[in-house]
Amino acid sequence: MSAQYTIGLDYGTNSVRALIVNVASGQEVGAAVWGYEHGTAGVILGRDPNLARQHPADYLKGAEIAIKQALVAAADTVRGFKPEQIVGIGVDTTGSTPLPVDANGQPLAFQKKFSNDPAAMAWLWKDHTGVEEAAEITALARKMRPQYLAKCGGVYSSEWFFSKILRCLRGSPEVFNAAYTWVELADYVPAALTGTEAPDKLTVGICAAGHKAMYNDNWGGYPDAKFLGRLHPKLGALRARLRPQAYAIDKSVGGLTADWARRTGLRAGIPVAVGAFDAHLGGVGSGIAPGTLVKIIGTSTCDMMVVPVGRKLADVPGLCGIVNGSILPGYYGLEAGQSAVGDIFNWWVNYIQPHGEKLSHRALDEEAMKLQPGESGLVALDWNNGNRTILVDQKLTGLLAGQTLYTTPAEVYRALIEGTAFGALTIINRFEEYGVKVKQIVNCGGIAEKSAITMQVYADVTGRPMKISRSAQTCALGAAIAGAVVAGAHRNFAAARKAMTGLKPKVYVPNAKSHQTYRKLYTLYRKLHDAFGTTAWKGNLHDVMKQLIEIRTQARK
Amino acid sequence: MSAQYTIGLDYGTNSVRALIVNVASGQEVGAAVWGYEHGTAGVILGRDPNLARQHPADYLKGAEIAIKQALVAAADTVRGFKPEQIVGIGVDTTGSTPLPVDANGQPLAFQKKFSNDPAAMAWLWKDHTGVEEAAEITALARKMRPQYLAKCGGVYSSEWFFSKILRCLRGSPEVFNAAYTWVELADYVPAALTGTEAPDKLTVGICAAGHKAMYNDNWGGYPDAKFLGRLHPKLGALRARLRPQAYAIDKSVGGLTADWARRTGLRAGIPVAVGAFDAHLGGVGSGIAPGTLVKIIGTSTCDMMVVPVGRKLADVPGLCGIVNGSILPGYYGLEAGQSAVGDIFNWWVNYIQPHGEKLSHRALDEEAMKLQPGESGLVALDWNNGNRTILVDQKLTGLLAGQTLYTTPAEVYRALIEGTAFGALTIINRFEEYGVKVKQIVNCGGIAEKSAITMQVYADVTGRPMKISRSAQTCALGAAIAGAVVAGAHRNFAAARKAMTGLKPKVYVPNAKSHQTYRKLYTLYRKLHDAFGTTAWKGNLHDVMKQLIEIRTQARK
Repeated sequence: MSAQYTIGLDYGTNSVRALIVNVASGQEVGAAVWGYEHGTAGVILGRDPNLARQHPADYLKGAEIAIKQALVAAADTVRGFKPEQIVGIGVDTTGSTPLPVDANGQPLAFQKKFSNDPAAMAWLWKDHTGVEEAAEITALARKMRPQYLAKCGGVYSSEWFFSKILRCLRGSPEVFNAAYTWVELADYVPAALTGTEAPDKLTVGICAAGHKAMYNDNWGGYPDAKFLGRLHPKLGALRARLRPQAYAIDKSVGGLTADWARRTGLRAGIPVAVGAFDAHLGGVGSGIAPGTLVKIIGTSTCDMMVVPVGRKLADVPGLCGIVNGSILPGYYGLEAGQSAVGDIFNWWVNYIQPHGEKLSHRALDEEAMKLQPGESGLVALDWNNGNRTILVDQKLTGLLAGQTLYTTPAEVYRALIEGTAFGALTIINRFEEYGVKVKQIVNCGGIAEKSAITMQVYADVTGRPMKISRSAQTCALGAAIAGAVVAGAHRNFAAARKAMTGLKPKVYVPNAKSHQTYRKLYTLYRKLHDAFGTTAWKGNLHDVMKQLIEIRTQARK
Repeated sequence: MSAQYTIGLDYGTNSVRALIVNVASGQEVGAAVWGYEHGTAGVILGRDPNLARQHPADYLKGAEIAIKQALVAAADTVRGFKPEQIVGIGVDTTGSTPLPVDANGQPLAFQKKFSNDPAAMAWLWKDHTGVEEAAEITALARKMRPQYLAKCGGVYSSEWFFSKILRCLRGSPEVFNAAYTWVELADYVPAALTGTEAPDKLTVGICAAGHKAMYNDNWGGYPDAKFLGRLHPKLGALRARLRPQAYAIDKSVGGLTADWARRTGLRAGIPVAVGAFDAHLGGVGSGIAPGTLVKIIGTSTCDMMVVPVGRKLADVPGLCGIVNGSILPGYYGLEAGQSAVGDIFNWWVNYIQPHGEKLSHRALDEEAMKLQPGESGLVALDWNNGNRTILVDQKLTGLLAGQTLYTTPAEVYRALIEGTAFGALTIINRFEEYGVKVKQIVNCGGIAEKSAITMQVYADVTGRPMKISRSAQTCALGAAIAGAVVAGAHRNFAAARKAMTGLKPKVYVPNAKSHQTYRKLYTLYRKLHDAFGTTAWKGNLHDVMKQLIEIRTQARK
C-alpha cells in the first residue's frame, strides 16, 4: 500500500504556501510559496495608514500555483510520488479577513466595476479602518449584550468581522449594498475548492466565527439581528444571510471539484477540511494539547491553549477569545497574543538601523547575547503596536526607560526582546490566574526558529523551558493534519498529533541566576504596564529608574 | 593712545582656550585652543565609569601655549598689535574641579611619587566617584545644618568639592594625608599666574566656594569644623587650612609674575582677576543682568540669573545654588541647569547612529525641522544623565514614550530636542514661581550657535523669543571682561557689559500654533516628570499614550 499524504494550504499576509505531508510520519516532502501579485507585497495600501486589503484573485491563483509546485517538489523528494497519493486538504488563513460576496458567493472584486475598489476586496486582518466602529460595537455590547464581550476579552477589535463590515457600510455604501453577504477568507478558500461558495451551501468555521464574529452556540450563533440592527438597520438585515451553524476542523466542507482537480493534478473529490486561522492550525501543527501553551512567534504572537469541554472554565479577562472547538473539536480554544514581537525587533534593526547596515539582526543577536540580564539598565514596554493581551488596547505605544549617554544599540535591542518576554509572561500568568495551568511551552514561527537569544531570554524571564516545534511550517502542517483527519487517515486529532507532530531536540533551559534578576525587572515592567495601561493603578514610579540602576550595578559586578 | 585688550583664559573639559578682546568694543581679535595632553581627550578615565580626572600639568602648559598662540593670532588680525597692549587677564574653568596641593600650594601630582596617581590629580567636575559621600553629606546637613542645603537646591552633589575630598580621604588616604589642602581649579590657575599659590596667600573665588563648597558669609564661610568633623575627623581638621574669605571677580588676585611674563610675552604685573566657573563667566560674556536668563547650551546647560543683593529672594528649591557675588559683585548669582542636552543629541546621532554614518547631525536637523510639533507621537524625558534642576537627582535616566513600528530616527531626534526644551521650560517656571521674573532669554554655546531647530523648538515650547549672544566664546569673553574690570578699563561690570557684549541679529520667535501644541505636550512631559521624579505624585498614566496619539492625529491633519 502506497503512502498517503495531505496538503496544508497556508494563506499568509504576503504569500500562500502549500505543504505536502506524509500522514503516517509527519514528514514534509514538498512545499512551495507563491507571493501575491497585487499591491505592495500582496497588500493594497491607501493614504490612510490603517487601510490594508488584498485582492481575492490572488487567493485562487495562489492555490493553483502553490499546489502544483509543491507536487513537483514532492516528486523530487519521494521516489515514485504521485499526486493521487494526496488524500485530503486543509486550509488556514489570516483573519479576521472578511470579503464581500455576491448572491452566488463570488467576491465582488471579481466584478469589473469593483475590481479596483479596495472596499470590495478582502479586508486584511491588520486593516484598522474600523477603529470607531469597533468602539461603537464594544459600547453597545457592554450595554446590551455583555455576554458577547466576555468571550473576546471585553473589547471588540477593529481587526474583526463586524467592525470591518460596519465600516464598509458607512464608508463605501455602494459596496455594502452590492454585497449579498460577507465571508471570511478561511471559509472562502475551502468553499472555492469544493464549489460550495453559494451562500446557502457555505460551511463556516467556528474558529473565525467564534473568535472574531461573536458567534456562540449558547446564544444561537452570530449576534442577534436586534443587536446588529441597533448598530445599523442594514447590518441587522445582514444577520439572516449569515450561516446558522459553524463547525470545527474535523468536518469536511466537500470534495475537490473536477475543475480544481484538473487545474492542480489532484484527484477530484478528495475532502477539504473546514478552514481555520493560521495561528489555530499552527497550534495543531505544534502538537497542542491540554496543558501545552503553543506560542507562534513572528511579527506578532499568538498564544494558544485548549481546555476540554466540560471542564469548568472561567471567562479570562483580556484573552482574544474562548471558543468551543476553535482549535480542536471537543476543546475550548483559548487565544491570547502580543500585537508586535518580531515587528518591534525589526523596527529597531531595519527602521532605526543603529550603526547603519553594519549591524544586522545576527550581529545584534550576538552582541545582545553577551550582555547579562539587567546590565543595560533598561526596561521596555512591548506596545509599539498596541497591546492585545491582557489590556486589549490598541491606543498604547512603546516605551523605553533607563537610557544613559552610553546606552548601546545592542542594549536597546536586548531590552526590546526582554520587553516582549515580559509581555509573554504576563499572558502566561493570566492563563494560570484563571486556572488554566501551563505545563509546557512549545514555540514555533520565524523568531522561535532563528533567534536563540529570544528563546533564551524567554526561558530566563519565565523560568520555564522553551521547546521548539519540529516543523518550521506549523500552520501549514496543522492544515495538513486537518486534511488527514477529514480524509480518515487518522481517527482523531490526538492520533494525528502523535503521528505527525514533534519537538526539536534543542530545549532552552532557564538559568536560575538570570531568572532571579528578571523577577526583579518584571516587577518594574509590571508597574509600568499597570501605570500606563490601566486606570485602576495609583501610585508613583519614583523607584523605577533607581531600581534599574541598582540592578545594573549588581549585574556589572 | 593705543587700544587696550584683555585675555580670557577658558579651561574646558578637553582643552584650554585663550581669547584676546578689545576692551572698548568687545571685538575678539585673537584666539587659540590647546588640547590637554593627558588621558583621553584630556580626561583620565578608570575602570569605574564614574572616575574622571585631569593632570594639572596640562593647565600650566596649556596657559602658556594658548596665550602665545592667541597673541600671534591677534597680531595677524590687528595691524601693529603688541602684547604690551594686554592690560589684564581673567580665568574661567570647569568646576567643581578640586585638586590636592602641598604646603606650598603645589599640586601633589607634580611630585614624582604621585605623578601617575589619579587621586592626586584634579578631580574633574564630572567625576562621580563620591556618590555615596554626597549622600552622606546631604544626610548629615539635613539633620545638623539644613541652612547649608537651602542654598544649593536641597541636595549636595557628588560632583562637588567636599564629596570628592571625602572620597579621596576614604579611598586614597595616602593622597589625602600627603595633601596640605585642596584648591579649586578656578582658584589654582590665577594663583599660579600670580605666584600666590601658597595656602596663606591664596585668593579663592566666591563662585566655586559658594556654589560647590557650601561657603556663605552668613555662617562664617565654609562649613564649620564640627560639621565637617562629623563626616570624618580629618575633614574637620582640614577646615582650618581653608581660606577665611572668598571674593567676587572684581578683585585682582595679584600681578602676573615675571616668570609668566617671560614665558608668554605679556607684561609682568598686569592684574589677574579672581577665577570663576565657565558658566558664570559665560553669563557675564552674554550680558547677564537682572531679568535676563542666560542659557549656556552645550553638552549640558547652565541657566544663570542675577538678582540685586538687598531684594527679597526666597530659597528656590532645586536650584544648583544661590550665591552672593558668584556671577557679578553686588548680585546674587542663581545657577540652574540640565545635566545633559547636547550629550543626549550626541548619544542618538553618534552613539546609536541611526542609519549609520549617512545620517549626520545636519541631516537629522533638516529632517526633524520638517516635522510638525506633535507629529511624532513621542515624548521624552531629558534625563539620560540625571536631572540637575529641578529634581537634583542623578539616579534618574532617560525615557522615551510613544514609539510605534514606524517611528523614524528624525522623530526620535526631535523628541529628544523637545524633551530638553521641556526641561528648560521647567527651569524657567521654577525661577518665576519663586519671584524671579524672566524678561528675556539669551542663549550661547555650541548648540545655540549651530542648531537652528533646537532654538526654534525652545522658542515654540517656552513661548518666548530665543536670543543668541553675539560672541561664540562667551565664557572666555566673560573672563576677559573680568580682566578688563580688574585692570580698571571699565569702572564696573555694567559699563563693561555695555561696551563688550551684544546679541546676534537673528532672534528665534515662537510660533503661536506650535506653542499651543507644545502646551499640551508639556502637560504630558510634566506628568511623566513628576511620576518618575517625585514621591509626592500619585495617580496613573493611562491617558499619556492616548493623548500622544490624539495630538499626533491632530498634527497630521
